[in-house]
Amino acid sequence: MPTLIRALTLPAAALLLLPGFSPRFDDPPMRGFTTASAKIQREWEAKFRALPEPARMREAMRRLAARPHHLGSPYGKDNAEWLRAQFESYGWDARIERFDVLFPTPRVRVLELVAPTRFTARLEEPILREDPSTNQRAEQLPTYNAYSGDGDVTAPLVYVNYGVPADYDELERRGISVKGAIVIARYGGSWRGIKPKVAHEHGAVGALIYSDPRDDGYAAGETYPNGPYRPKDGVQRGSVLDMPTYPGDPLTPGVGASPGAKRLDRKDAITIMKIPVLPISYADAQPLLAALTGPVAPPAWRGGLPITYRLGPGTAQVHLKLEFDWKQTPLYNVIATLKGSTFPDEWVMRGNHHDGWVNGAEDPISGLVAELEEARALGLLLKQGWQPKRTIVYMAWDGEEPSLLGSTEWVEEHMADMRAKGVFYLNTDGNGRGTLGAAGSHALERFVGEVAGEVTDPESNVTVLQRQRMAEVIGGNAEARSMRDLRIEALGSGSDFTPFLQHAGVPTLNIGFGGEDGGGIYHSIYDTFAWYTRFSDTSFVYGKALAQVAGMMVMRVANADLLPAEFGNLSATAKRYLGEVTTLRETTAKEIDELNRRLTEGAYSITNDPRSPLQAPKAQAPAPYLNFAPIQNATDSLARVAERYERAYGGLPTSAVTSVALAQVNALLRQGDQVMLIPEGLPKRPWYQHALYAPGYYTGYGVKTMPGVREAIEQRDWKAADEQIAKLAAALLRESDLISRAAQLLEQATGAKPVP
Amino acid sequence: MPTLIRALTLPAAALLLLPGFSPRFDDPPMRGFTTASAKIQREWEAKFRALPEPARMREAMRRLAARPHHLGSPYGKDNAEWLRAQFESYGWDARIERFDVLFPTPRVRVLELVAPTRFTARLEEPILREDPSTNQRAEQLPTYNAYSGDGDVTAPLVYVNYGVPADYDELERRGISVKGAIVIARYGGSWRGIKPKVAHEHGAVGALIYSDPRDDGYAAGETYPNGPYRPKDGVQRGSVLDMPTYPGDPLTPGVGASPGAKRLDRKDAITIMKIPVLPISYADAQPLLAALTGPVAPPAWRGGLPITYRLGPGTAQVHLKLEFDWKQTPLYNVIATLKGSTFPDEWVMRGNHHDGWVNGAEDPISGLVAELEEARALGLLLKQGWQPKRTIVYMAWDGEEPSLLGSTEWVEEHMADMRAKGVFYLNTDGNGRGTLGAAGSHALERFVGEVAGEVTDPESNVTVLQRQRMAEVIGGNAEARSMRDLRIEALGSGSDFTPFLQHAGVPTLNIGFGGEDGGGIYHSIYDTFAWYTRFSDTSFVYGKALAQVAGMMVMRVANADLLPAEFGNLSATAKRYLGEVTTLRETTAKEIDELNRRLTEGAYSITNDPRSPLQAPKAQAPAPYLNFAPIQNATDSLARVAERYERAYGGLPTSAVTSVALAQVNALLRQGDQVMLIPEGLPKRPWYQHALYAPGYYTGYGVKTMPGVREAIEQRDWKAADEQIAKLAAALLRESDLISRAAQLLEQATGAKPVP
Repeated sequence: MPTLIRALTLPAAALLLLPGFSPRFDDPPMRGFTTASAKIQREWEAKFRALPEPARMREAMRRLAARPHHLGSPYGKDNAEWLRAQFESYGWDARIERFDVLFPTPRVRVLELVAPTRFTARLEEPILREDPSTNQRAEQLPTYNAYSGDGDVTAPLVYVNYGVPADYDELERRGISVKGAIVIARYGGSWRGIKPKVAHEHGAVGALIYSDPRDDGYAAGETYPNGPYRPKDGVQRGSVLDMPTYPGDPLTPGVGASPGAKRLDRKDAITIMKIPVLPISYADAQPLLAALTGPVAPPAWRGGLPITYRLGPGTAQVHLKLEFDWKQTPLYNVIATLKGSTFPDEWVMRGNHHDGWVNGAEDPISGLVAELEEARALGLLLKQGWQPKRTIVYMAWDGEEPSLLGSTEWVEEHMADMRAKGVFYLNTDGNGRGTLGAAGSHALERFVGEVAGEVTDPESNVTVLQRQRMAEVIGGNAEARSMRDLRIEALGSGSDFTPFLQHAGVPTLNIGFGGEDGGGIYHSIYDTFAWYTRFSDTSFVYGKALAQVAGMMVMRVANADLLPAEFGNLSATAKRYLGEVTTLRETTAKEIDELNRRLTEGAYSITNDPRSPLQAPKAQAPAPYLNFAPIQNATDSLARVAERYERAYGGLPTSAVTSVALAQVNALLRQGDQVMLIPEGLPKRPWYQHALYAPGYYTGYGVKTMPGVREAIEQRDWKAADEQIAKLAAALLRESDLISRAAQLLEQATGAKPVP
Repeated sequence: MPTLIRALTLPAAALLLLPGFSPRFDDPPMRGFTTASAKIQREWEAKFRALPEPARMREAMRRLAARPHHLGSPYGKDNAEWLRAQFESYGWDARIERFDVLFPTPRVRVLELVAPTRFTARLEEPILREDPSTNQRAEQLPTYNAYSGDGDVTAPLVYVNYGVPADYDELERRGISVKGAIVIARYGGSWRGIKPKVAHEHGAVGALIYSDPRDDGYAAGETYPNGPYRPKDGVQRGSVLDMPTYPGDPLTPGVGASPGAKRLDRKDAITIMKIPVLPISYADAQPLLAALTGPVAPPAWRGGLPITYRLGPGTAQVHLKLEFDWKQTPLYNVIATLKGSTFPDEWVMRGNHHDGWVNGAEDPISGLVAELEEARALGLLLKQGWQPKRTIVYMAWDGEEPSLLGSTEWVEEHMADMRAKGVFYLNTDGNGRGTLGAAGSHALERFVGEVAGEVTDPESNVTVLQRQRMAEVIGGNAEARSMRDLRIEALGSGSDFTPFLQHAGVPTLNIGFGGEDGGGIYHSIYDTFAWYTRFSDTSFVYGKALAQVAGMMVMRVANADLLPAEFGNLSATAKRYLGEVTTLRETTAKEIDELNRRLTEGAYSITNDPRSPLQAPKAQAPAPYLNFAPIQNATDSLARVAERYERAYGGLPTSAVTSVALAQVNALLRQGDQVMLIPEGLPKRPWYQHALYAPGYYTGYGVKTMPGVREAIEQRDWKAADEQIAKLAAALLRESDLISRAAQLLEQATGAKPVP
């Protein structure tokens, strides 16, 4: 039903005469709400904030993390059913959506040093007396990397640092090839799946990934169970599926893995690693690393083990044998809805996965228990008469750990709904103590700050926003003092937001508290209720804060008169990225010039140390200038229309706007990310379509903004750079056009004079 | 005898008509030589360069490093006598100059952990079967820090990182005081003597200094005897006398420690440490560090031991007992001279110490054997008819290790000679493989490059200068390609150049090859002939290169028509330093503003993690603006007169200049550093007088340029900064006046028009 909005009553209008008063659609700021609806909204939010209970989160974590609950496990299914029942008990309509996905688990795992001495790796995390949850061997997944290749190889070992492309350049300068070798890389410096992928590209036949104690072991602090850090036999499990190419079921790219879906042959699934890969502990890694000969590793490559890190190869020979059970596994997503009273076909979504690698208390249950409390609280509000105008959908995803399976298959299955109805997706994936981290669609940057400004940080008793701001200041960003909005980060990958944002174009945020919660139990059997309640958010006060922030975000988007998009920050962000890629071309060009100049003048050979020889790098073709003008024009246009939209938005308080007009604008606003999708996707990975955000092809979770252009420059593919500039510019112009139309509708609705 | 110089003959003058020809006093560049004398000089230098023999250096090292030869040792005296005899055999007039100095050696050394567990430190470096030189226990000095205080203390232990002032700020933020505690610091980050000095200032009652394996132990490479790095029981001996206050005999500041010199009571010698200090190995340090509790050390404080580095204090109690034999010890400097044919009262000096901490093959013998070969070669040239115009003095210093004793007492004793006759002092202190490092008086920057441009690097077969240049380029300094002169460094302290440059004002250089010669035997019993000939300049080709560079420098200064000073680089350097200190004031002011602002807005308390609490730093008084104008005017003046001098110098080739005129100019030039001395010295340390260079009061060996002003700003002593600005400006104006007079003399001599 259309609602007549009269924003300013007479007494309010009188305020206009006061000096310094600036009329606002909302006051204090609540973007997208009229003063009247803001008042109502604020009352409901205040009620909402009082409801999440730490004690309930603690009990929910105790139940959900009581047993291993990975994809395909009995307790995982049990959790899904329990979660469904919980949502129903809160008054939600809840169901389980099942998919069937390829999920390999290990049959055989052998890792031995066979020369010059023998050593057999333990490959097992010891049970701890102090933590009974660790004593569930029969249900625990062994330590492994999901989607490793099968293999049985014996080969020399080479240490490759983080195993990113630049590391292989360093090895090459030292005359070391990994062709036919097994590489050993340390965790860090990139997402784990990059390491075997790049090793394979360089001819390696196997890969080991170990957790160096400098990063999350004894160097960082006391190890579990005495402290929160990784004990010597602790192992980081994890997926090595080539998710930067596409996530989800490797056999059903682009479509939901429903029973009848057409499936690829496994051999044709390009995201499955071609070589065997195994994660190991530092206790297992030390004898292997100590057996290496060859040059001493450069200082930046050295970790925290009490050995001389060497590159190899040498006489060290390693035998790695891995076999997997490549089985189809049922996956159980829990989907709960509260139907919207006014716009049932506009979906406000919020998810956190429920599967863990083992007991997964921190990852993912600490985030899921907040989500549950939000759902309970919203259920209570419903009973008190609150109504969401838009449909709220809460998800608990299965199979996130192996490859974002639950969310990806669901989004692929429901793509038509996503494009037509998706208004917002809010993701969490665990929680800790500290400051709020937020990342996602930059049109929501202001929205994030407005919500964070109304939630109290439990440690400092200032607002979450103020603590974020002061953390920025302490971190050296003095400008954060005077910035109206704090910057949110861009999203790469690593959690369930990816299909929503980068494949479906749904405006998306990912949030969580952190920064004060170090530890080394990630993806090990030690990520337990006992660990979490001793070392992380022990009293669940940050769980409550997360529920407050997330719940308020959901409530605001669900009931906003006008969706809370703001495009000034988006356009400023796009200009910042543009600055980065233009600078990247310049520095790349200079680097190439400098490299070639050094080669010409013999700088490498003249400075070579004959006892630690370094080969000169190869000459490179000079970098051409690129025509960035299309992006420059597009970002300028974006800036202009963003300003025009803000002017029109600023006219709302003094106008009468019909709900029909607002609905027309909202219909545009919810496509704000969708129009920035590049239909044919990114080079080598058509599944990723967002023009501004993608996980890096060679960094994994790490984001690449303006990915097509940036990666083309990084890879010196100048032709691709030109093509990607055109596609990016077109995407930004679509965005610009969308904003322009939204602004025009607002101008018409408010009777404002159109901007020339 | 006056010599008439006619620079250009008629045929040379005809060249002036050729386009692009620029007349030069010397061609190719040999600053300070007429074309005619350059030709002669170049012939002698070519002969000289052929003479140094690696095999002889090897044999000399074998002999000199055969037994421990520290100050006061029988073999040290034996070496001195042998060296004297060697110089005599080369045709030099050589003698031993003895001083008597205070040199403590240990009587009692006890270090124990007494709680919560017991551990007694070994404090001894094991003999190695593979290296017979290590098996001379009776003659070896035990591991200790010379000029530590006596003491017997039992106290809690606190880890203080490098033990520099900033580290105590970090501790304070964590609520940790070292009052009444024993500190344990790692080597590095400052000269070792700073650590106990700062610990004492903060109330500590004892100090331990250990060699962390990350720096020069197993993390850096294979340990001795398998490789060049520090084995687990290896210890870095060394002095902790407060040399940044004054070096040399602590009982005879400012005067030579001759038999009749007036001596302070030991208790009045302010340079002697007040607390007991002991250097230890990482094998001895590990149980102590592992016993610490308290907060985990910040990431930058963590070393390479396989433990969690913690700050303490806690239950760890350490007992440290040290007693020394505070005896007067005879010191034997070897002084060898070749009398100058024309200017016998102008001394060109060159030294390297002969004492080591134990066998000292690298430190100092690798430099001394080059010096010996230079002396032998110059002796051979003499027999072929070569004559130095100026007197050449070669020194082999004793007692450098404890505190630059030999050189300091000698300079203090011969201060009148230094002021009247000192033309140049060239120092070395060991040698290795790599590029030439050079530091010292910036008026000699061009001179360094000219010599380095005529010596061939043995590994690359380009000139030493070209390899330096390419190393700069590879290091990221692309401008080094086009710089006429490569920058030389400023001198702090740490070797025998200090009394010459910073106390007597003799133009000074310190040189040596290095950069390719890592190792961890510094000041241990493993610095032996066996180590050096396996891991460093094994074939002594860099020994030869050092002899060539150093010998040519000596020969050029000895026979130059005009001393090779050039003031453009000096004035540019002074402007660079001025830029640094003005920037330092600005950044300091900004830091203080930012700090106070953070305190006002509560940034520290808002971002505080209650489980790892950090106290807020204390507020500071805002930094005032300083009047840098006196230095700005002085450096401008320096730049103008440097240019005027160069113009006058450029007029020499076309003029007839008498040797009388040249002598007048030379008399000024050799005072180029002397006039920059501040007679009353630096604050708190009158012994240090150079206005441009000093070791840092809180960094030790590390140089502070424009030290009076820079350290006043660092210490927020704004009144002192003002005073020091005036003194520095006056010193620079004296320099400016001296250059101006030199230029005027040259103008008069050449008949050039004086510059307005």
